Amino acid sequence: MSVEKVLSEAEQVIKEVVPPEIDISGIDFEGSVFVIYTKTLDEFSQNSDIVRQLAQNLRRRVAIRPDPSLLQDEEMAKEKIKQIIPPEAEVSDIYFEHETGEVTIEAISPGLVIGKHGALLNEIKKETGWAPKVIRSPPIPSKTVGEIRDFLKSVREERRQILKKVGRRLNRDLSEGETWVRFTALGGYGQVGRSCTLLMTRESRILVDCGVDVSNINGNGTPYLNVPEVLPLDSIDGIVITHAHLDHCGVVPALYKYGYDGPIYCTPPTRDLMALLQLDYMKVAFGEGRKSLYESSHIREAVKHCIPLKYGETTDVAPDIRLTFHNAGHILGSAIAHFHIGEGLYNVAFTGDFKFEKTWLFNSAVNKFPRVETLVMESTYGGFRDIQPSRHEAAEVLRDIVQRTLKRGGKVLIPVFAVGRSQEVMIVLEEMMRIGEIPWANVHLDGMIWEATAIHTAYPEYLNSSLRTAIFQKGENPFLSEIFKRVDSRETREKLLSDPDPCIVLATSGMMNGGPIISYFKEWADDPNNTLIFVGYQAEGTLGRRIQREQREIVLNEKGQPLNIKVNMEIATCDGFSGHSDRRQLMRYVRTMEPKPERIVICHGEESKALDLASSIYRKFGIETRALKNLETIRVK
Amino acid sequence: MSVEKVLSEAEQVIKEVVPPEIDISGIDFEGSVFVIYTKTLDEFSQNSDIVRQLAQNLRRRVAIRPDPSLLQDEEMAKEKIKQIIPPEAEVSDIYFEHETGEVTIEAISPGLVIGKHGALLNEIKKETGWAPKVIRSPPIPSKTVGEIRDFLKSVREERRQILKKVGRRLNRDLSEGETWVRFTALGGYGQVGRSCTLLMTRESRILVDCGVDVSNINGNGTPYLNVPEVLPLDSIDGIVITHAHLDHCGVVPALYKYGYDGPIYCTPPTRDLMALLQLDYMKVAFGEGRKSLYESSHIREAVKHCIPLKYGETTDVAPDIRLTFHNAGHILGSAIAHFHIGEGLYNVAFTGDFKFEKTWLFNSAVNKFPRVETLVMESTYGGFRDIQPSRHEAAEVLRDIVQRTLKRGGKVLIPVFAVGRSQEVMIVLEEMMRIGEIPWANVHLDGMIWEATAIHTAYPEYLNSSLRTAIFQKGENPFLSEIFKRVDSRETREKLLSDPDPCIVLATSGMMNGGPIISYFKEWADDPNNTLIFVGYQAEGTLGRRIQREQREIVLNEKGQPLNIKVNMEIATCDGFSGHSDRRQLMRYVRTMEPKPERIVICHGEESKALDLASSIYRKFGIETRALKNLETIRVK
Repeated sequence: MSVEKVLSEAEQVIKEVVPPEIDISGIDFEGSVFVIYTKTLDEFSQNSDIVRQLAQNLRRRVAIRPDPSLLQDEEMAKEKIKQIIPPEAEVSDIYFEHETGEVTIEAISPGLVIGKHGALLNEIKKETGWAPKVIRSPPIPSKTVGEIRDFLKSVREERRQILKKVGRRLNRDLSEGETWVRFTALGGYGQVGRSCTLLMTRESRILVDCGVDVSNINGNGTPYLNVPEVLPLDSIDGIVITHAHLDHCGVVPALYKYGYDGPIYCTPPTRDLMALLQLDYMKVAFGEGRKSLYESSHIREAVKHCIPLKYGETTDVAPDIRLTFHNAGHILGSAIAHFHIGEGLYNVAFTGDFKFEKTWLFNSAVNKFPRVETLVMESTYGGFRDIQPSRHEAAEVLRDIVQRTLKRGGKVLIPVFAVGRSQEVMIVLEEMMRIGEIPWANVHLDGMIWEATAIHTAYPEYLNSSLRTAIFQKGENPFLSEIFKRVDSRETREKLLSDPDPCIVLATSGMMNGGPIISYFKEWADDPNNTLIFVGYQAEGTLGRRIQREQREIVLNEKGQPLNIKVNMEIATCDGFSGHSDRRQLMRYVRTMEPKPERIVICHGEESKALDLASSIYRKFGIETRALKNLETIRVK
Repeated sequence: MSVEKVLSEAEQVIKEVVPPEIDISGIDFEGSVFVIYTKTLDEFSQNSDIVRQLAQNLRRRVAIRPDPSLLQDEEMAKEKIKQIIPPEAEVSDIYFEHETGEVTIEAISPGLVIGKHGALLNEIKKETGWAPKVIRSPPIPSKTVGEIRDFLKSVREERRQILKKVGRRLNRDLSEGETWVRFTALGGYGQVGRSCTLLMTRESRILVDCGVDVSNINGNGTPYLNVPEVLPLDSIDGIVITHAHLDHCGVVPALYKYGYDGPIYCTPPTRDLMALLQLDYMKVAFGEGRKSLYESSHIREAVKHCIPLKYGETTDVAPDIRLTFHNAGHILGSAIAHFHIGEGLYNVAFTGDFKFEKTWLFNSAVNKFPRVETLVMESTYGGFRDIQPSRHEAAEVLRDIVQRTLKRGGKVLIPVFAVGRSQEVMIVLEEMMRIGEIPWANVHLDGMIWEATAIHTAYPEYLNSSLRTAIFQKGENPFLSEIFKRVDSRETREKLLSDPDPCIVLATSGMMNGGPIISYFKEWADDPNNTLIFVGYQAEGTLGRRIQREQREIVLNEKGQPLNIKVNMEIATCDGFSGHSDRRQLMRYVRTMEPKPERIVICHGEESKALDLASSIYRKFGIETRALKNLETIRVK
């Protein structure tokens, strides 16, 4: 096997580069990373030049890790650390990362953990062998983050084996012959929903996103996964997820059900949000008596196979493909996936969903890359008329609607995705109430919004800088405002439904094709004092779209019986909160992109919008642009 | 299994339709044909209405066959027939077709076999049980046709099993869900050579052609058969071959080597020519010390799996795809493959190589169809400037070149494909010598041209009507002229090479990338009295193209040593003999096509020509036209 040859050649390189006083106790691949174990970690760390030189000569990412024999048993180490740190530090969690030999200490007062000139940290290192890392406790504890951390700990050995297997596969022999790059549209082309693209070279196959079409709950709404290009599933090298919305990742666990056994590459927040939303999707299907595409065991498999990758980090995802994520500005952890193929052969970037504007939550999407020949970009708002108001105009519109509804004693109902729009609307509502622009009222959060918000605060480095500063430096965390009330049980919801007082409710799902929003809508639709406000994109085929298009008589399913609903409540649309770039932003993204790509492929938009955007880009910038159709394959090199 | 259900339902239908006095002894599928065995064949035959009604009610092609117990043993029957027929009839062959219960009697004087009012035929039928069919003996006996007939006889039982298996597969259950039609360019797009397209529906996969790029003998010149779309090979439902040139069928036997085990659909002459050319290709590779893609056993497998289909016959090639061949006018048996997909869902026609002009050999290609939504057409001469002279202009040019060369005592060397151009050039040369337009000289045929010509005379129904009449009614067979000399051994060739007399040599291969033409070229290139005439298309990368482009110093390989050749002989190109439509014919084909297709896809042409033709068709006729690239997939429905 080739990997053995690689390892033995690597030993040679290491011998040449590493001075003899540094002890090497083992080498191996974990995923794409070349791991070197040492009993003299300190000497190694002090000489960063060696690591750089090793990475260069080995032409791989290199991780230096302490030999496991140096690390104290976890439980004993935890006890020791608790003894060393003063109780005023208010440690909220301690967890160990065997892969790096690091122990992370979460505390309300990180300074007290560090001690004077780092004295306590040094003591911890000396006593336990673990390298301590201190972070501030997230302001809202997330159940998901905690559970995933515990789960990964429980499958540590299995994960090591997975990473080793991935590492071996990445180092397989390459065949010789003509090289080429192509990709197949498996879903989400000419439509919004079930995004899925297969990137293929002569050597490798990478699946970029694998989402569900939530507007198609009668069919199963999956991408075209029965085509020969993706079969057998275990021949695929890796799955790359651009962000956690279900239309980009909702089918991923089903891949493990049907035989896929490889890695998933995504940002750390995407991994957590993805698990949260998939679990919810499964539960909702169960609750509505539909057959779920997968079980929770498959979601656990997916989490187990995640290889998290931060913005700007580069990793091999196939023998001839390297992946780098860049901020996409769409939701927490959303990424543009940049693929470098071959040794300088070709570069393709998939935008995923992206926002080319700084929002209340995130920085603007990245559009500068070292190299890009083909750009695959979304076109949700790609139509000629799809001009959206600015963030501030949107806030003003929202203010007016909320004002008049609350004043007339009505309720404001806002369907939102748990992840993304809800947090922005929360920030805006909190600010408007705080400065008195709208009357004080409770803002109830139903359907995982609370938990999603907690995950946001667990990953502050993915928020935009001003929000990060407000939360962590100024202690002004809008999410902690007392106006927000969590709906966390059926009883709370029932009580709220029959409460006559005006209030604001943010509830999922964002397109009203299920979720708790339906309960509120059923109860409140006939009162003209109430208002339903759409703040996000309503896809073709969803209930949200039908109501937005002025359908005023709705038939819903109530325990198998048809339920007729007359929509008398005010229906308002508040554009400008979208996590998607509007037409002007899409065009500006291309215009200011560096380098100018040779080719653009349009996806993730209704057919007419995709075609309109494609021809506009071609006419305006002279770039060959094509709106691909599902099931088509384009060759780019 | 579904097929059992189909058969039992069919029994019901037969009971209803067939009167009780007709005996049914068995039913089954062979390929797409529903076969009914009977002991009372005559009663059946007399009532053609029953057969029609059965076909209608069963919604399948129906074949009525005599119960095998009624047929006399072959050898005994042969003896009996020989006793019945008078020796003056000059019977040249008698062969039995068990599948139909027919015995074919080839004779120089068919009338004497038939007897007065068919008396002898009736006697044969009565005495042997076999239904006699009389045909005129082909004027030139073909070794290939005979060998293939013998081979098929020797594997009769195996073939029956193959056909049964195909029949069962064609009757498999269909899955439910969205239907679609797409195809992938696997070779021969943006290039001439290695034609190969994969036609895919949700249910089925059909490979249309599978050729070799003969200009790429260093690479293996195969289509992209390592892509996941075609793997595993045994998942493909069928292979359709449009004609026998190697750039359309040269890789087919390799498919059997690598696991394909299904049927090949082609016209009867294509089957024979294909085997001939594949065997030659294999031998040439062997002779040149190259690794052949396959062995002769794989060619036999291919022949064994051929399901011959005449022009105008329709057959199921997959549960949801029906195929009809139409004349393409390119070479003997060349076909346009028309696919009807689903029940009225979609229609695609692949032209293969086609000539939209009546030639000395064939009728003009068909361009009227019941329905066609997408046309896939070749573009060998699709460039703006690719205007070819008419057949008659071409003959005049050829006459002048031959005249001056023979007059100055030189030799005329014409590289030709064994199949197609050689027969046309033979007809023209024969006529010109016969009417005294050029001096009398021997025309030597080297490299299978003789055998290919023999196959032409074995399939007179595939020649154009005037040629057929000349041969069979008027007894004027140009191929039998004494000017034609066969080079059938190395000694004959050596003698010819050193013979000082002027002569004409037609030799393969047509693009000078191998074959006996090279020996003549090596010997005669330096004499300015000689002339090399190109009468066919010279693909990029071939020696023919290099010489045509005025390269006058050629380095050839002589038993591993470089051999420098100075080209002093006259180099002439005689356009107009091509089996391909020129630019005007291509445009006229589209303009006069019925019905007008919704979409045209261009293949089989250099990239610039394909693009030029595509944009011209779009501009001129307003039909969406695209020049697909190899490895791309287009969705048409």
